[in-house]
Amino acid sequence: MDELDIDAVAELELDDPVLVEGLPGVGHVGKLAVDHLLEELEGESTLVRRVYSREFPPQVTVEDGVSELTCAEIYAVSPPEGRDLLLLTGDHQAQTNDGHYVLTSAFLDIAEEFGASEAFALGGIPTGELIDEYAVVGAMTAESMREDLEEAGVEFREDEPAGGIVGVSGLLLGLGARREFEVACLMGETSGYLVDPKSARAVLEVLEAVLEIDLDYETLDERAEEMEDVIGKIQEMEQQQQMDVPTDDDLRYIG
Amino acid sequence: MDELDIDAVAELELDDPVLVEGLPGVGHVGKLAVDHLLEELEGESTLVRRVYSREFPPQVTVEDGVSELTCAEIYAVSPPEGRDLLLLTGDHQAQTNDGHYVLTSAFLDIAEEFGASEAFALGGIPTGELIDEYAVVGAMTAESMREDLEEAGVEFREDEPAGGIVGVSGLLLGLGARREFEVACLMGETSGYLVDPKSARAVLEVLEAVLEIDLDYETLDERAEEMEDVIGKIQEMEQQQQMDVPTDDDLRYIG
Amino acid sequence: MDELDIDAVAELELDDPVLVEGLPGVGHVGKLAVDHLLEELEGESTLVRRVYSREFPPQVTVEDGVSELTCAEIYAVSPPEGRDLLLLTGDHQAQTNDGHYVLTSAFLDIAEEFGASEAFALGGIPTGELIDEYAVVGAMTAESMREDLEEAGVEFREDEPAGGIVGVSGLLLGLGARREFEVACLMGETSGYLVDPKSARAVLEVLEAVLEIDLDYETLDERAEEMEDVIGKIQEMEQQQQMDVPTDDDLRYIG
Amino acid sequence: MDELDIDAVAELELDDPVLVEGLPGVGHVGKLAVDHLLEELEGESTLVRRVYSREFPPQVTVEDGVSELTCAEIYAVSPPEGRDLLLLTGDHQAQTNDGHYVLTSAFLDIAEEFGASEAFALGGIPTGELIDEYAVVGAMTAESMREDLEEAGVEFREDEPAGGIVGVSGLLLGLGARREFEVACLMGETSGYLVDPKSARAVLEVLEAVLEIDLDYETLDERAEEMEDVIGKIQEMEQQQQMDVPTDDDLRYIG
Repeated sequence: MDELDIDAVAELELDDPVLVEGLPGVGHVGKLAVDHLLEELEGESTLVRRVYSREFPPQVTVEDGVSELTCAEIYAVSPPEGRDLLLLTGDHQAQTNDGHYVLTSAFLDIAEEFGASEAFALGGIPTGELIDEYAVVGAMTAESMREDLEEAGVEFREDEPAGGIVGVSGLLLGLGARREFEVACLMGETSGYLVDPKSARAVLEVLEAVLEIDLDYETLDERAEEMEDVIGKIQEMEQQQQMDVPTDDDLRYIG
Repeated sequence: MDELDIDAVAELELDDPVLVEGLPGVGHVGKLAVDHLLEELEGESTLVRRVYSREFPPQVTVEDGVSELTCAEIYAVSPPEGRDLLLLTGDHQAQTNDGHYVLTSAFLDIAEEFGASEAFALGGIPTGELIDEYAVVGAMTAESMREDLEEAGVEFREDEPAGGIVGVSGLLLGLGARREFEVACLMGETSGYLVDPKSARAVLEVLEAVLEIDLDYETLDERAEEMEDVIGKIQEMEQQQQMDVPTDDDLRYIG
Repeated sequence: MDELDIDAVAELELDDPVLVEGLPGVGHVGKLAVDHLLEELEGESTLVRRVYSREFPPQVTVEDGVSELTCAEIYAVSPPEGRDLLLLTGDHQAQTNDGHYVLTSAFLDIAEEFGASEAFALGGIPTGELIDEYAVVGAMTAESMREDLEEAGVEFREDEPAGGIVGVSGLLLGLGARREFEVACLMGETSGYLVDPKSARAVLEVLEAVLEIDLDYETLDERAEEMEDVIGKIQEMEQQQQMDVPTDDDLRYIG
Repeated sequence: MDELDIDAVAELELDDPVLVEGLPGVGHVGKLAVDHLLEELEGESTLVRRVYSREFPPQVTVEDGVSELTCAEIYAVSPPEGRDLLLLTGDHQAQTNDGHYVLTSAFLDIAEEFGASEAFALGGIPTGELIDEYAVVGAMTAESMREDLEEAGVEFREDEPAGGIVGVSGLLLGLGARREFEVACLMGETSGYLVDPKSARAVLEVLEAVLEIDLDYETLDERAEEMEDVIGKIQEMEQQQQMDVPTDDDLRYIG
């Protein structure tokens, strides 16, 4: 096993495809979004590459007894309408700084191989509090992309994200730019505490506008409702606890 | 010293052998099991390979003053009845993510060299509580193996192990599958807190059935009894402490 | 992306230039100093090299929506008076021990390429308390440099810095000496708790004397005043808290 | 700068020399011992090799303003009486598991270059309490060495050191044995809390007997006395604190 071990599962001709990345990250927003795309476009998508790497954790997942080595997967999608897509998903990020460079380079190599010169990195941006209106904050490799993205609803903010963008999403921008890719990172606002299907929907709605595709959100909305139930229960428990716990005023009279 | 340094201690012809791995892990179940196999099959086993590696800790063990560099050892076993075996044991796992890939690849290389195309990775699965009935949970590289394993007593569970399988055991499945090995991981249930010879016995009983070998458990049962004594003493101490410690009610009257 | 990826942005002939390094570190003293040099010498400076590396964090910065891959930058300066300079700045140190060696070697390679054989590493030395008089403590690769540096106001102390000098600044001395560079490290005293423009000014005043350049400090002094305001507010808050908090005497009467 | 960068400072012919290693470790016993050897044999010793490596911390030491890059040093000693020696000293161990393998291999290469086939690794073994009688515990690569070492006062214990020996000392045994070196590790008992010149003396007395050399201990004994003063003061402070602190009985009446 070398540092990288790429299985060419299938070969396909694509027409100027766009790479869309959704590896795990803040609120699992990116992964939820790309996995939803895969679900919606299932009939039109083909697994084309599996990327194994010593940079991934030394781990198999086990489903109903059958093991599967950790990898990232790239699917080719040729929808009847709209742009061809390369969808990148997986269960893990690289485990070292170095590894993020190695894997992102590999992903860009594959995208180039299929003729791509544009990419979207999907992710979340943590706000630290529960959210009603899900803005989508953007970052891009070139000023020329601003107008189209703003029209699709992306907000560009002077100082956000404050700490920059790390991991594969960050390097798709950074290394992509060095290869003349046009890359945008779309970050859905999310509390940062929970898996957030609503934030994933906000990101996908931007993508719908930019790529001129049409998505149905039923399954994603169901997951969002499940999460609402979870949040509701957490809030109930918190309120219950607050009633049980003596307040500052109570404490003042102890002793 | 290169990343890997393999001593070919002896050469032997084996007939379609099965690799059985037992490196340290949860409850030391895998290591106990393979070390017991080695003890029981001592007359029929030959040390064939020592694997040294910069991925192991930079360490020697010292026994009665004589040092021995950390390594993994592979023994060839040709029992009069039943399948030929390659038994893999050692005192350490790799120290990095990367190292697990490097070492597992080396182990599979050696197994291939001796003509193996099947492997069992032995280990423990933590339950978090003391156990009466020791189930053996399984994972496998191919659906086709299920029937034989279930007949031998292995349980396949929908969501276990929840976090997948990491380290050499996990990668024997993951990397093994990529080389067309049939690999099963047998995980004895164990509390996870203590070295667990009973769990090792449960795993070995499955192996007996699958490989059609016959094992005596006297020495392993003795170790299990020693552990029972240890557990008994810990429980006594805990009860003693509970009696000594003031209860919440007592504390209410202090001050 | 290799371990190092160096963009030759421009080529220039320089006359015996001096490398001046100011990467982030204690009190951001070195970075503040070199960034101020760049600001003051803007009209005369040209970006000549960008150093990308897998040793930097896998990260882009985002300014007003546009992303920029983490790198170190080297500017060439040919002032009308005084020595030619190579100014090294960046937002990050290497992320591993190894990486400091890799990056410092690259920086020295570039400096040699432009004909340099001298270097100044700028940084801070933490005192653990707020400072009135900002001494500049020095370290050098050769005894022969002492006199000139002392004349410029540098203090050499028997046991400082106690733990030696780590990171790129340390290795510019260590690896520089092995390549026959004359290297001095200038460390402004600083509390170590806050970004410290006053310490940066103290370091620059030494550099002015050594390199016979003339600097204006207006913008740096403004930043110093802003920091003074911040410090003032912190001190106020601390005093306020001290008044609010019950003293040991108060507590004695509780209960 | 490569992973290793070795300066051949001087070339000397030695007659069957013995490598003696004393890098920092438990109680600084090994380093104290080799540094004392160097001091005592100063007139007869020559620095022959400096070993620089990316495995050492990225650091310079600074003495009276002059910087020195972290390295390990090997001195050749040809005493008028007794065996020729190669003394290995330095201020740091490697910073990674991998690095211990790399550096120890380099040290053994150099020792071989000078014709050595024997080595002593000096160190401390922590007891967890202050010590009156300083035993020297041993480990060796071959049973054949036992008699000579026991005659020189080395104790071999069945289960010590319990966790084996790590770092360069451990690998000198482990990698040395693989190159047909005879290597012994001499570990002076030490509390493990403090730099321990008395333990270093105990180790050196064994070495005197084995190598038939004669050492004076005046300077080492002075350092031991200084440490005694430090220990005395710590004990005084502890006693003082015990008197100041309320006992359990006192506390029972609070409230």
